[in-house]
Order: sequence, then structure tokens, then C-alpha cells
Amino acid sequence: MAITTPDQWQEYLIAKQRLVEKALDRYLPPATAQPERLHQSIRYSVLAPGKRLRPVLVIAAAEAVGGKSETVLPTACAMECVHAFSLIHDDLPIMDNDDYRRGRLTNHKVYGEAIALLAGDALLALAFELIVEHAENLPSNRIVQVMQLVAHASGSGGMVGGQVVDIESEGREIGSETLQYIHHHKTGALITASVLSGAILAGASQEQLEALKFYGESIGLAFQIMDDLLDILGDAKKLGKPIGSDQKQKKATYPRLYGLEESRRRSHDEIDKAIQAISEFDHRADPLRTLAHYIIERDQ
Amino acid sequence: MAITTPDQWQEYLIAKQRLVEKALDRYLPPATAQPERLHQSIRYSVLAPGKRLRPVLVIAAAEAVGGKSETVLPTACAMECVHAFSLIHDDLPIMDNDDYRRGRLTNHKVYGEAIALLAGDALLALAFELIVEHAENLPSNRIVQVMQLVAHASGSGGMVGGQVVDIESEGREIGSETLQYIHHHKTGALITASVLSGAILAGASQEQLEALKFYGESIGLAFQIMDDLLDILGDAKKLGKPIGSDQKQKKATYPRLYGLEESRRRSHDEIDKAIQAISEFDHRADPLRTLAHYIIERDQ
Repeated sequence: MAITTPDQWQEYLIAKQRLVEKALDRYLPPATAQPERLHQSIRYSVLAPGKRLRPVLVIAAAEAVGGKSETVLPTACAMECVHAFSLIHDDLPIMDNDDYRRGRLTNHKVYGEAIALLAGDALLALAFELIVEHAENLPSNRIVQVMQLVAHASGSGGMVGGQVVDIESEGREIGSETLQYIHHHKTGALITASVLSGAILAGASQEQLEALKFYGESIGLAFQIMDDLLDILGDAKKLGKPIGSDQKQKKATYPRLYGLEESRRRSHDEIDKAIQAISEFDHRADPLRTLAHYIIERDQ
Repeated sequence: MAITTPDQWQEYLIAKQRLVEKALDRYLPPATAQPERLHQSIRYSVLAPGKRLRPVLVIAAAEAVGGKSETVLPTACAMECVHAFSLIHDDLPIMDNDDYRRGRLTNHKVYGEAIALLAGDALLALAFELIVEHAENLPSNRIVQVMQLVAHASGSGGMVGGQVVDIESEGREIGSETLQYIHHHKTGALITASVLSGAILAGASQEQLEALKFYGESIGLAFQIMDDLLDILGDAKKLGKPIGSDQKQKKATYPRLYGLEESRRRSHDEIDKAIQAISEFDHRADPLRTLAHYIIERDQ
């Protein structure tokens, strides 16, 4: 759809978020299925209020190349599962040791550390089960391509790799190259994979995929810079974690390396680059364009 | 190949184990690749001495329906990655809290808990990356089928589900139904998935797959009963963990529920059933037949 006003964007975003949340509720094992505690723990984290950024990206990218929301819903939900898996494991005491996320108790504070660990594990496996759901409606080679992307983006060459370097950098002085590595892998990989997965499932051309890869990498970086900035500037209640917690843990962040103003400038640059990358796309890419702005204008 | 003597079986087993170990060494990220500690931790666990039961099952099942070892190697290695992922997470202090496995320090004792957690996560993702490796040589629909099997067998409907019920049963009196559930999910699911994956990639018929599913479930159960028995009777050094540790933790086991003799009888029954299930297969299924016996004759 063409989006020209903020209201239209809000309407679009809310509609897609609801679509995703309904689908998640349907795809996640019911809380009454054995083993109940595991499934309750999974649902507690995945169905917690959230922006559903990755699923919305899957959908918006599919639509940008002529696909339909409904067709890509399983993979949209899979991305949210991978995201939730990473949050649950990140919050564990052996990792960041966070008691709260977005104002709610973290998974292990409610269900215990063993169940939280296993809920994360199960969610990563579930993501791949969901991607296979497409097998009924879409060519197998597209599904295989998406599998490859998501597996790579989740593992040691993607999110997990970024997480490790992030941990190893805590309390150390790091250079711009290491910071780039962390952001590109820890956040960027899954965001880019979301954009590309939606487009691949919808049958995008090689040229379109290249443009969308660039788009994904740019908004991924902008997103992480904004996260760093919000950690310093944001409203504690909105972000749901103590402000400045990254600073306290001496995490590698953009503001720490470049200062507030330069970080803000860079996030805007990335958004400009992202929108430029998809300039050849027609009005069906409007949600992707608006989403790029939304990423740096959000307050949580 | 036809196997008629114990020496031929030993030769076959060692040849396949070496093939798998060489392939694993090749497929795992090098220890010098960034992030090094993560990759060292992954290699420490996956390349530790082991029976390679699941990869050998993938290969033997493929051969039983006319396939070749080399063709199924990526998925054979993927199964070892899923297995290693589960062992690393199981050994963590928040789970079984084991310091040793097969006489070596567990992953977290060497690399720390955070890296061990992330190494496990990365291995599950890597398993799916490896399965996709087949895309060059095999029809996509077979790969998608294998993905589905492995994802389901690893997650809340398989291994992780079994693990949760196992934890919840500790120190409680449990019935035969719960014990069956734990064994079927915690060990059986991945063993059955290994057998079926090899066969699917090699182009097995529906009839063959049904027989092999039965075979896999039976040897999976026999394997777990033997593990329970070895925990009581085995040689501590060979098993690499303190004898009776399951007893100490009051884990749900066959011997606890049925006694030693009845457990042994049941494991033999399962092996007979497994061999019966594949009685229509020709001599190319000899390794699967011998492997079934090996499972209950092993001393580790």
C-alpha cells in the first residue's frame, strides 16, 4: 500500500503487528500441551508486548516485491522466535543477568534458569519448524534459501558471534572495527535476514535482493545506534530497563566511541542510505521507507 | 556392504567414524576464525572422542536404501552438532552441573558458562546450515523434509521437551508413561530423526521410511535403557562420569522402575523388534542390523 501520512503508517504498523501476534498465538505450542511449564515459558516471552520489528520487516519486504502478508507469516513468526530466543538467553544470570525486560520480569525470574535455557533452545528449533510450514505453498528452493539465511544469521557467523565479541569487549577499550563487528552481527544479521527472507519467499529478483540487503544492513546499524542512544537518553519506563545499564557494564556502544551527536548523525546517515538503496522500488515499498524513519524516531 | 563377522563390523564402524570426524573438522568453523574462543569451545566439544552414533546412523540408513556415505555427510555432521549442543547445555550448572564428560572437563569448566551457552546455541544453528549444504546435490524437497524432522526432533516436541520432563521428574516417583515420554523424546527423537534423515536424502520410499521409523524408535529406546543400566553397572572410567550419578539425582530410569533384569530383557526385546522391522531390506542394511546389537553390547 502507498503510505503518505503518519496516520497511514500507524494503521499499517498496528495491522501487521496484530496479524503477527495472532499468528504467533496460533503457531506456538499451547500452554496446556505437555510439557506445560516449557510452553508457558515460551509463550510468556514471545507473546510479551513488543514492536515485532523483524516480522513486520519480513512482511513489508515481501509486499515491496509484490508478495502477500499471509504467505510469509510463518517465517515472520520464525524471526520473532529467534529474537525471543536470543533475549531469553541474554537475560540469564550467566550472561547479562537482567531481572527485567520492558518492565516485566525476565523469563528465568518467572520460570527458573533451567526452563529459561530450554525455552530459548526450543524457540530456535521452532523457528526452523515454522519456516518449513511454507513447504505446502511455496517452491522448496526458496524455503531452503531462507533456511540458510536464518541459520547463518542466528549462529556463530551472525547473532551468537556478535554476542560473544560483545561479552569479550566488556570493560575494555575497543576500536571502531570491533564495534562495527558487534553491531553488524549481534543485531544487523537478523534484521537483514528478515528483510531478505520476506523478499525471497515472495520471489524477488537478484537485483531486488541486493538492494534489500543494503537496506537491511543500513537500518540494522541505525537500529543498534538508536538502542545505544536510548540507553543513555531514553525514558527508563519506556525502555523497560534501567537507563545507562550498558554504560554501567561498560558495553561497547556508539555513544561511548563517537559521542552523542556524532552517533545521532550516523544513525540518520544510515537511514538515508537505506531509503536510497530501494529508490527504484515502487509505492509498494513505502512501508519499508517509513519503517526506516520509524527506527530512529522511536522512543523505545 | 554385507557384514557377517565382528571384524567386518569393527572395520565398517571405524571407517565411518573417521569419515564423520574428518568431515566435522572441515565443516566446523576453524579455531582461528573470529570469534576464536567460541569456535575453540565448539570444536572442543564436537571433536571430543565419541561413538558418532547419530552420524553413523544417518550413513547406514542412507546405504540401506542404496545411497552413499559422501552424499549424506553434511546431515550426518549436523546430527552430531545437535547432539553436542544438547550435551553442552545439559552439563551447565543450571542443568545437571557436571564437571566431567567422558573423562574430560565439560565445556563450561574450560570456556566458562557464557561461552558454553553460546557454543550450544551456535551448534544448533550450525546444524541447520549444514543440512542446507545438500542444496547443491539433492532435490530441495528432500532437504526441506529433513529440516522439518530435525527441527521437530530438537525442540519442544522432541529432545528439549524430554529434557524438561526429565528435570521435572527428578526426585519424584514417576509412572511408566512418563518414563516412556522422557526416553522417547530426550534420546529417541534424535536417533529416529538420524535414521530417517539419511534415508530421505537417499530417496527412500514411503514404505522403507515407515520400517526405518520403527527401527529408529526401537534402537532409541534400547539405547536409553542401556545408558540407564550402564550408569549402575558400568565402569566409571569407561563411561566418564561417576557411576550411579543418575541414581543419586533420583533421575527417572528404567532400572529404578523395572529392576535390572527386566530392563535388560526389554532392551533386548527392542533390538529384536528393530531388526524385525527391517527384515525386508537386503544385505545393504547389514550395518543397521549389526548396529542394533552393538547398542546393547557396548560398555560405554
